[in-house]
Amino acid sequence: MRNSAARRVPIALLTDFGYRDHYVGVMKGVIAAIAPDAPILDITHGIPPQSVEAGAIALRQSWSYFPRRTIFVAVVDPGVGTARRAIAIESASGARFIGPDNGLLVPAADDAKIERIVEINSARYRLPKTSSTFHGRDIFAPAASHLWNGTRLATLGRAISGIQQFALEQPRMEGDELRGTIVYIDAFGNLITNISRESLKHFAARFPTRKLLVKIRRSVSVEIRKTYGDAPHRASLAAFGSFELLEIAVREGSAADRYAAEPGMPVTVRVSR
Amino acid sequence: MRNSAARRVPIALLTDFGYRDHYVGVMKGVIAAIAPDAPILDITHGIPPQSVEAGAIALRQSWSYFPRRTIFVAVVDPGVGTARRAIAIESASGARFIGPDNGLLVPAADDAKIERIVEINSARYRLPKTSSTFHGRDIFAPAASHLWNGTRLATLGRAISGIQQFALEQPRMEGDELRGTIVYIDAFGNLITNISRESLKHFAARFPTRKLLVKIRRSVSVEIRKTYGDAPHRASLAAFGSFELLEIAVREGSAADRYAAEPGMPVTVRVSR
Amino acid sequence: MRNSAARRVPIALLTDFGYRDHYVGVMKGVIAAIAPDAPILDITHGIPPQSVEAGAIALRQSWSYFPRRTIFVAVVDPGVGTARRAIAIESASGARFIGPDNGLLVPAADDAKIERIVEINSARYRLPKTSSTFHGRDIFAPAASHLWNGTRLATLGRAISGIQQFALEQPRMEGDELRGTIVYIDAFGNLITNISRESLKHFAARFPTRKLLVKIRRSVSVEIRKTYGDAPHRASLAAFGSFELLEIAVREGSAADRYAAEPGMPVTVRVSR
Repeated sequence: MRNSAARRVPIALLTDFGYRDHYVGVMKGVIAAIAPDAPILDITHGIPPQSVEAGAIALRQSWSYFPRRTIFVAVVDPGVGTARRAIAIESASGARFIGPDNGLLVPAADDAKIERIVEINSARYRLPKTSSTFHGRDIFAPAASHLWNGTRLATLGRAISGIQQFALEQPRMEGDELRGTIVYIDAFGNLITNISRESLKHFAARFPTRKLLVKIRRSVSVEIRKTYGDAPHRASLAAFGSFELLEIAVREGSAADRYAAEPGMPVTVRVSR
Repeated sequence: MRNSAARRVPIALLTDFGYRDHYVGVMKGVIAAIAPDAPILDITHGIPPQSVEAGAIALRQSWSYFPRRTIFVAVVDPGVGTARRAIAIESASGARFIGPDNGLLVPAADDAKIERIVEINSARYRLPKTSSTFHGRDIFAPAASHLWNGTRLATLGRAISGIQQFALEQPRMEGDELRGTIVYIDAFGNLITNISRESLKHFAARFPTRKLLVKIRRSVSVEIRKTYGDAPHRASLAAFGSFELLEIAVREGSAADRYAAEPGMPVTVRVSR
Repeated sequence: MRNSAARRVPIALLTDFGYRDHYVGVMKGVIAAIAPDAPILDITHGIPPQSVEAGAIALRQSWSYFPRRTIFVAVVDPGVGTARRAIAIESASGARFIGPDNGLLVPAADDAKIERIVEINSARYRLPKTSSTFHGRDIFAPAASHLWNGTRLATLGRAISGIQQFALEQPRMEGDELRGTIVYIDAFGNLITNISRESLKHFAARFPTRKLLVKIRRSVSVEIRKTYGDAPHRASLAAFGSFELLEIAVREGSAADRYAAEPGMPVTVRVSR
């Protein structure tokens, strides 16, 4: 377990703690104190405060690029201090996930194929003094570090089966429309929808000779292009982004600004008339 | 000194340099060039620009979670380029602290129990060319790296005793009131006061049968709760936060926004009438 | 190549991806998966979106502080998805640079003395599935990791000679004026010009007995001081900053705010009358 190869497995962190405070730093201190050789990698700490959905999507889009046995610690936790449980998950693909039982881990862990879930309730693997407001420091970081040191998942707490679910909404076909929503807006202002390449292909197969347009807001229609680079400067376009989801973007600009877009806003693919 | 255990001691960085510029990156480059095996951990670089007080509090709340011999480099340094000294501190608890002599290191180092202080004035342990504006790169990062490599503290410069003090203001009891102040506002908008659990207990002992309320601004009274989770959605509450200081918070919201609060604003605990 | 010393060479990242999304985290995951022992250091990810010039200056000012064989991955890439090439550069000073062929790497690589350039076009050293929008993940991070693992530069792709140039504008002497521009504004609001200490010395030699003033906007004249600390609280001053370029600053304040300054704004040194 503690051979040299295992040692290089990183502990990867994703939170909504932001970059202003010392909270993430304290979590790193805790990890370094328990598992001094564990490489710590930041995924991001810029998840919008308490947005479990944005955190779940970012984790879902990230995990598979990391080394096989990576331990992911994700903390977006509006329910800290309530009865919500702390959980740890082992998956068939090797990835481990630690965080609150509020759905945050589910899209990523489902994708990695959940094998075992425990509630982290063993007092031995948390900080001696556990606050009710900072489980990232007191429970999640210690659990990840002990796991990294070779502690078995089953030792962290009792096995459970039912956890809080979190289904990313799927697009729906209705007549000659494919109706999706914006699920994530990135810092460049790109609007990432829940329309996968596959679901668009499925929809498009019904209208083999027709051109498709993407509608956002009542009156805006955007063409689907192969790459961002195909669009003229400042033009709006739709394209499949780096995570194989349809995005609406503005070349060298921000689609979020142009369309005053927010997560949840509907986006429709329809047949050009 | 350079055995394998010592090698894993991190160099932990805290600055007000922000995340836009390359300044923190350059400090990391300097460390990697002098001490290539030193793990570098960021505490935060989001301290409000030139706010020595916020930096001092963040460092004070962080240091004890790190491994025993951690070398902390803290730079919030409005006086860079003036006669203020560069200092390095060794503490009884093992932690080492490096930064400007402006009080920034004091609350943490006091807590860790100061054993030895030197002024970093040996030209051998700084970059060959020292600027007057970027001591993080030219003096503090090199000093930390050499210390990490095994250079003794005394070699960095001459021993000194008096350094710039920095006392965090203590709350005061007056009649049936305990008067404190907001000392730190975090990115979630939580208002962290200087009222420790101990000082509140001390105060409360005088009114054993009475309920206590926390006042902020003229007319707002907030109940003290055990955890954030106990309060209804969007309610204001007071609770002891993760660093054992009384905080005013809004459940799933920002107390800083709601009360237009700033560091230094008074907060009073008083007996309910 | 893979001896213990080489192992500590870092991979240093500079992007305009910001801190909100998981994009930088995914790049780190890719690096950890291919080169698990490579230390990853962030220079910054806060380059203003798609500002190749700001990225080029930040990289130019950072690279020489890093260990000799550091591999720099820089991604500010408005042309991703167009025909612009992906390139890797080896330099006489040992530093390696990887990024888009849009001028971003040029000021740093020129300074490090370019020895060899390849277009990264070997399919073997990128991710199996290459998107048109996220070359940081699919092309640049893998190339850096393979290079770190010992793959030779020439193996990454075909040697090329001409790359997109990028000349930082030089200040010009005209009569009794030295005309420069603001090339970078940092998070403290300091205005960094393209006037080097050397070019000012050259200019000043023509007026040995005269005092020089720095003009910004029509009517503001600022004195040149030796250090920031020499100026009174809240005073404006000009001084050579930590990268040996003339800066306009406000002591304990922001010159960017005071002068509503932006990159490209002219700054003139002239003889006092």
